[in-house]
Amino acid sequence: MYRAQEDHRSASFPALTRSVLDRLPAIVGSTTATPFVFASSGSAMWETALINSVQPGGLLLAPRYGQFSHLFITTAEKLGYRVQVLDVPWGEGAPADAIEAALRGDHAHEIQGVLLVHNETATGVTTDVGAVRAAIDRASHPALLFVDGVSSIASLDFQMDAWGVDCAITGSQKGFMMPAGLGILYCSGRVMAGLDGITMPRAYFDLRPMRDTNAQGYYPATPPTTLLWALDEALTMLHEEGMSRVVARHHRLAEGVRRAVHAWGLRLCAAHPSLYSDTVSAVLVPDGADARTVIDIAARQWNLALGSGLAQLAGKVFRIGHMGDVNELMLAGALSGVELSLLDAGIDVPVGAGVAAATTYWRETAVRT
Amino acid sequence: MYRAQEDHRSASFPALTRSVLDRLPAIVGSTTATPFVFASSGSAMWETALINSVQPGGLLLAPRYGQFSHLFITTAEKLGYRVQVLDVPWGEGAPADAIEAALRGDHAHEIQGVLLVHNETATGVTTDVGAVRAAIDRASHPALLFVDGVSSIASLDFQMDAWGVDCAITGSQKGFMMPAGLGILYCSGRVMAGLDGITMPRAYFDLRPMRDTNAQGYYPATPPTTLLWALDEALTMLHEEGMSRVVARHHRLAEGVRRAVHAWGLRLCAAHPSLYSDTVSAVLVPDGADARTVIDIAARQWNLALGSGLAQLAGKVFRIGHMGDVNELMLAGALSGVELSLLDAGIDVPVGAGVAAATTYWRETAVRT
Repeated sequence: MYRAQEDHRSASFPALTRSVLDRLPAIVGSTTATPFVFASSGSAMWETALINSVQPGGLLLAPRYGQFSHLFITTAEKLGYRVQVLDVPWGEGAPADAIEAALRGDHAHEIQGVLLVHNETATGVTTDVGAVRAAIDRASHPALLFVDGVSSIASLDFQMDAWGVDCAITGSQKGFMMPAGLGILYCSGRVMAGLDGITMPRAYFDLRPMRDTNAQGYYPATPPTTLLWALDEALTMLHEEGMSRVVARHHRLAEGVRRAVHAWGLRLCAAHPSLYSDTVSAVLVPDGADARTVIDIAARQWNLALGSGLAQLAGKVFRIGHMGDVNELMLAGALSGVELSLLDAGIDVPVGAGVAAATTYWRETAVRT
Repeated sequence: MYRAQEDHRSASFPALTRSVLDRLPAIVGSTTATPFVFASSGSAMWETALINSVQPGGLLLAPRYGQFSHLFITTAEKLGYRVQVLDVPWGEGAPADAIEAALRGDHAHEIQGVLLVHNETATGVTTDVGAVRAAIDRASHPALLFVDGVSSIASLDFQMDAWGVDCAITGSQKGFMMPAGLGILYCSGRVMAGLDGITMPRAYFDLRPMRDTNAQGYYPATPPTTLLWALDEALTMLHEEGMSRVVARHHRLAEGVRRAVHAWGLRLCAAHPSLYSDTVSAVLVPDGADARTVIDIAARQWNLALGSGLAQLAGKVFRIGHMGDVNELMLAGALSGVELSLLDAGIDVPVGAGVAAATTYWRETAVRT
């Protein structure tokens, strides 16, 4: 990002635009998706996906299993859409069977889209998107499939084409290892084909001028050039490592973190091992303890930023992020900080046990050079 | 901007939020405005201003005197608003008399807002916003006053309170001397008081959650932290120099550029000296010449980025930017580049005359240290 500012209408600018847009689809396992990059938060892509593919007032189906699926739903409602919500205990994933049943019950095909959060950052749960796709197919329902991949894309396995995802949503500051400031959206051929027929009022997040100017290598408004250069470099890094190795690295690092949690005698918020997230672990504190105390001590005393419990999980969990540009020793330091903070907060854990469990696992599974 | 990433939910983050928001109003001559900062383009603040202050389908009044007033109008129309357009020759400013007449004719007070572009980047024209305010007052009309200040705020004199501006709009990459990526919006007390009653569907650009979380020092979504640090430093630089000196510097530098243009025997697009912009000069090429040739030679041969003529001005003008972090010698280099490019394009100008006229003026008016 550390470069001179430049003229985004110059003849040389399209080379950057193309380098970014041409290399984005492979990150989500797609050869057919059209990617878009906006100056925005990642969550702004919820709105961008919906207003460019669902007609005003349309009905959507959405399971709610954490704070981010909740916010995806409230965003849709703020935009005037109706949402049929399937409430699920936080710590579970998206319920494929209930989604299938709801779609089978929608004989008129009134439901226009299904909203999922691939990786619920709030609970540390990764949902099986392929299972939801299969449920939609079994119900023979034409609903579009919207997937928030903010804390999964570029870290976890994401198969946009195989899963039949219509809109995949992310931001710059997680798997892409960048500062915040970019929203990234991938659209299927079906969404692109319908774009011109959607009547939702839209301006900044209208994909039509973006599509038309991107095709020439430019942007409709002044693009955030420094962040685009950072994304270009992030794509180079991801492609050099290779997405299968990126995914394997995250799994191995996360498994070490989980072994530390279990060595402390604590439990994860995720209800089953099949739901464990490889990018974030939400850890339940023992009954009677307040996770906010742990988080506060970690920040003030040990310079460690832990995620807090959100909404109904406030005080019950703290979250350890392990995504993007991380390795064993960065996480060993983080796990030491968690252990120190737990002890300082009066939560009795065996000293050193967490780090020992994690490092033992990482040592056993290391690729030796 | 060159700092480690940080936790935007930490206890220390509100200090940055407050440093930025507390120091923004003085830049536009306001003690009462509420400022907002978004990850977006500057032009996204057109949309943000309108959807948070004008009810769906509302009628707006807008003079059109350049490409950016045109785009402000088309943005309003894309959002479902009706716009009564006053077309004015490009090179003129906003017509206060015609605005007064239109408002006087609106006996039912159906017009909800007047859209202005303070500095038309396309034509190098600065409009007298105070004169438009006086026209609205003479018509005793309650319309809100929206002012695009993208290429004026933080460079030119801007008196939000004195001019009775309700929404002032800008971005990070001009007067604030930063990379692109932030939209900045200032709202009057009247807009803030009406915020909760506006029924436009809105999500990312909804000012209500922004107002509520900003009050606590935070943002509703992940904010673009590196750009916020840059804005904080830009505010320190602007306050150190002082806005009256910033404005005077731009005027003096711009006057040198204009003397160069006249020494070349060329004319500005702005129709009268009272309209000359101190941030950008749009220069008409002689009949029969194509400004695109000048711009192309400047970029390829002399590494100089000139602005192009937009829409109906394509081929007729090239634009010299002189805003933000500029001084005499940077502009002397730019003027030499313009002169070389004009000569290369076969436009006969007296060699060295432009730079001599500019530097003579800057020498005469220099504050000696």
